[in-house]
Amino acid sequence: MSRSPGRKQENHKISRELFVLTYGALVAQLCKDYEKDEDVNACLDRMGYSIGIRLIDDFLARSAVKKCRSYSETADMIAQVAFKMYLGVTPSVSCSSATGNEFSLILDKNPLVDFVEELPAERASLSYCNLLCGVIRGALEMVHLAAEVTFLQDRLKGDPVTEIGITFLRKPEDRKHRR
Amino acid sequence: MSRSPGRKQENHKISRELFVLTYGALVAQLCKDYEKDEDVNACLDRMGYSIGIRLIDDFLARSAVKKCRSYSETADMIAQVAFKMYLGVTPSVSCSSATGNEFSLILDKNPLVDFVEELPAERASLSYCNLLCGVIRGALEMVHLAAEVTFLQDRLKGDPVTEIGITFLRKPEDRKHRR
Repeated sequence: MSRSPGRKQENHKISRELFVLTYGALVAQLCKDYEKDEDVNACLDRMGYSIGIRLIDDFLARSAVKKCRSYSETADMIAQVAFKMYLGVTPSVSCSSATGNEFSLILDKNPLVDFVEELPAERASLSYCNLLCGVIRGALEMVHLAAEVTFLQDRLKGDPVTEIGITFLRKPEDRKHRR
Repeated sequence: MSRSPGRKQENHKISRELFVLTYGALVAQLCKDYEKDEDVNACLDRMGYSIGIRLIDDFLARSAVKKCRSYSETADMIAQVAFKMYLGVTPSVSCSSATGNEFSLILDKNPLVDFVEELPAERASLSYCNLLCGVIRGALEMVHLAAEVTFLQDRLKGDPVTEIGITFLRKPEDRKHRR
């Protein structure tokens, strides 16, 4: 993605409230369209994936980050650079497996739910922010990292924090090296 | 809307690319849901209206603007403060009527269409950014200003600029004063 030299970093910055409310309108529309929460979740994930595969170019161009050398570095990059850039928050990262390919991003505060009080009773299985999982999955795929990304905890559902789980799927050649 | 003193202005800032792509996903979903462009446009306007009536509190709290004394001041405020804050751009404003209640916001660059090349041929009547009209209409209504807000020109449709028309609807007492 080429950028004219006159285009300042500052120009990309906006207040997140309009975004948060627009996201809410999107989720509400999908809840009208699909009866089952699972279908809404899957649709948000698909939409997020399409966004992620486009957003990665913007991210690489503007963050000027170097290639990550490990899953752990990648997880830190998502939390400290990408989340900060696109959502204005920095989740903490923890590695949740001995095999070193499972990570959790833990959000004390989830800006996407700023205007949401709680999920309606009939939408108890809705993963309101599932778009984010798709975005992360899509963006990772574009840098040749296959991953499963899901919400493990959600404050909207009464959990103490919001936790996004990322499991990097090892490539066949990784396994080969390990033999 | 109360804000804790520790919550810095900076925390509200995000990159607009995720917003722009999410907005695109919303419009695409509505195009799936509704066959007629007019229905998509109306839905975007309604969604925007719901957003505007909530966003105004955030705007007043964070902009700390004083009450506008004229339609002209209000139009300038929308362009110079609100657009800047929520979309990172500042449209120019022109008054397009001798009666002083019709204004145009002219956008040389519309950030919401950053990733859109052109409208598909079968969607020629789609007002892609119609959400914005609803947002402005909703927000104005909450400060007791009735207005009609529509796109008059749209670069996505081949016009040289993107132009949003705002017509403030005079209140009965305004007319009374003029007699």
